[in-house]
Amino acid sequence: MTEHDLIGIGNALLDVVAQVDDAFLDANGLAKGAMTLVDDAQSGALYATMPAGTESSGGSCANTMAGFAALGGRGAFLGKVRDDQFGTVFRHDMRAIGCDFDSPAAASGPSTGRCLVLVTPDAQRTMCTFLGAASLLTPEDLDATAIAASGVLYMEGYLFDRPEAQKAFTTAAEIAHRAGRKVSVTLSDGFCVDRHRDAFRGLVADHTDILFANEDEICSLYEVDRFDDALQRARGDCAIACLTRSEKGAVIVAGDEVHVVDAAPIDQLRDTTGAGDQFAAGFLYGHTRGIDPYRCGVIGALAAAEVIQHYGARPEADLAPLVAAALA
Amino acid sequence: MTEHDLIGIGNALLDVVAQVDDAFLDANGLAKGAMTLVDDAQSGALYATMPAGTESSGGSCANTMAGFAALGGRGAFLGKVRDDQFGTVFRHDMRAIGCDFDSPAAASGPSTGRCLVLVTPDAQRTMCTFLGAASLLTPEDLDATAIAASGVLYMEGYLFDRPEAQKAFTTAAEIAHRAGRKVSVTLSDGFCVDRHRDAFRGLVADHTDILFANEDEICSLYEVDRFDDALQRARGDCAIACLTRSEKGAVIVAGDEVHVVDAAPIDQLRDTTGAGDQFAAGFLYGHTRGIDPYRCGVIGALAAAEVIQHYGARPEADLAPLVAAALA
Repeated sequence: MTEHDLIGIGNALLDVVAQVDDAFLDANGLAKGAMTLVDDAQSGALYATMPAGTESSGGSCANTMAGFAALGGRGAFLGKVRDDQFGTVFRHDMRAIGCDFDSPAAASGPSTGRCLVLVTPDAQRTMCTFLGAASLLTPEDLDATAIAASGVLYMEGYLFDRPEAQKAFTTAAEIAHRAGRKVSVTLSDGFCVDRHRDAFRGLVADHTDILFANEDEICSLYEVDRFDDALQRARGDCAIACLTRSEKGAVIVAGDEVHVVDAAPIDQLRDTTGAGDQFAAGFLYGHTRGIDPYRCGVIGALAAAEVIQHYGARPEADLAPLVAAALA
Repeated sequence: MTEHDLIGIGNALLDVVAQVDDAFLDANGLAKGAMTLVDDAQSGALYATMPAGTESSGGSCANTMAGFAALGGRGAFLGKVRDDQFGTVFRHDMRAIGCDFDSPAAASGPSTGRCLVLVTPDAQRTMCTFLGAASLLTPEDLDATAIAASGVLYMEGYLFDRPEAQKAFTTAAEIAHRAGRKVSVTLSDGFCVDRHRDAFRGLVADHTDILFANEDEICSLYEVDRFDDALQRARGDCAIACLTRSEKGAVIVAGDEVHVVDAAPIDQLRDTTGAGDQFAAGFLYGHTRGIDPYRCGVIGALAAAEVIQHYGARPEADLAPLVAAALA
C-alpha cells in the first residue's frame, strides 16, 4: 500500500491573475503576450500596482498534480516556498484542490515564487515570473519518506537549471527506485533541454521509467530534426516515453510496444497553456490504476483537450465521464 | 538481376476524361460527384454521347505503376484488356509512361474496362465505371516468368471481388515467393474488405510481405474501431505494413520497428484521387532501391502530397529533386 499514487516535485509558484488594460502594460514597460523573468523587487512593485486578482497555486508540476487530483488520484507535491503570504496561499490552494503539500516553508532566503498574469481585454496573457524560493530546491528539501511511499515520482524539467536541483532530481529518483517505485520526468522546455542536454540525457537514460516530452523537447534532447529519429532514440532510453505533438496527437513507446494516440477532438482552441501538464496528469492517472499504455495515452489526450478549450492550465470540466467512456 | 523492380497486377481501366455541363449530367440521369458502376451498353451509350475527351490508362495499380516509372523505377503491369480500341489505347499509354505491359489481349468476352470521368465547370468529377475485361482476371492470365523475374509483386485489392481473381492473387504470390521475391498488397477499399474479410485476412497473413492500407481499410480488415488497435494487429501479420492516414501522415511498421511519417506539406488540396496509389509508388520505389522503411515512407508521403495538389491520379511534377532532398 502506498500513501500516495503520485508525488510531484516542481516549481511552487503562486499565480496571480488580474485584468488590466493596455495602458497598464505600457506604463509598466511590459511586452504584451510575453513571459518575462523578473526579480523580487520588480515583482513586488508590480504586485503592489496591479489590480486585485485571483491567487492560486501554479507551476507546471503543480498543474499536473491538480489534474491528477481532479481525476481522483491521491497525490502529493514537493516544492519550495517561503514562510510568507504567497507561500501560505500556495499551500492552502494545493490542499484545497486535493493534493497534499507538506514541504516546510523556508524561514529565510527569497520569497515565494509567483507568476503575475496580466490579462488584457483581447484575452492575451502577459506574464511576469519571479521564481524566488521555488527554484532553490536542494536534496535537503526532499521528503524521502513521502517519496518512498508514493507509487510514482514525477519531476518537472523547468527546475533543472541549477546544479543543486539536478542533484535533488537524481537523489529523489534513487530514493524512489530503492523503494521499488517508478520515476517519471517531463522535459518541460526545449530551451532548458538545450542548456543542460548532457545532464538531461543522463537523467532520462539512467533514472527515468516514464518520460514526457513534446516534439521540440525530444528533438532537442537527441539533437535531431525529425520526430521519427527522436522516437527511435527514446525507444531505447526509457521503459515508457510519451511524446506529445499537439494536434498530431501523441506516440507512446512502451518497450516493444508503440502506440499512436490521436488528439481528442475539440470544439475550439482557447489557450494551449497546460496541455502538456494535463496530458501527463491523465496518463499518470491511468498508469497508477494499472491501465495499459495506449488507454493511458487516451486519458492524457482527453485531459489535454479539455484544458486547451478554456483559459487557465487546470481542468474545469468533470473529466470522470470522459475517462470512463475512454476506458469502456 | 531482375527484369523489373516491380510488377503490378490490377484493374486495366481506360480513363476517358471530358468536360461537360450540368445539363449533360441531368440528361443522362447521373448524380454529380458519384462513382456509378455501369454495364457495357450503358458505358457505350454514354461514350457515344459525351464530348471527345482525353483517354489514358487508369486504375489504382496502373496509377501506382505510372508513379513508380516517373520516379525512375523499372516496372511492368499485368491486367486484362480486350482486343479492342480501348485496350489498344490502354496498352499504348502504359508503355508511353515507361511501364511494360505485355498481357495478351483477350479475343472474346467483355470489352476493355473503362472509367468515363465527366468534369463539370465546378471541377467536380462524376464517374461511370464499366469494369469489363479488367475484373475477369484468372490464374491463367498470370505471366509466371515475369513475376518470378521482378523484385516485388504488387496487387490491388479492388480486384478481390471474384473468386478467380482471389485465386490469381495467391497463385501470383506463390510464384513470387518461390522465386525469392517479395509480395505487396494494397487493400484498396474498405467496402471490398468488408465483403471478403476472411479471404483478405488470409492473403495478408499468409502471402503478404508489404501491406498498404488506409485507416478505414485496416480497421475494416481487423474489425476494430481504433487505429491503434489495427496498428497492433498489423504488426503481427506481415513484415512491413504501411498505414496511411491522409493529413495525419502514415505509420510504417517493419518488424520490431515502428516509424511515424508526417504528411508532406502542401500549398492547396485539389483532388485526393490517387493519394494512396502514389504513396505506394513512392514507398516501393524506395524499397526497391534498398532504402530504409522510414525514408521509403517519406518518399511515399512526398509522392502523395504532389498528386493531391492537382487534378488526376498521376504525378505531374518532377519528383526526383524532392526525393533526393528527402534522402539527403
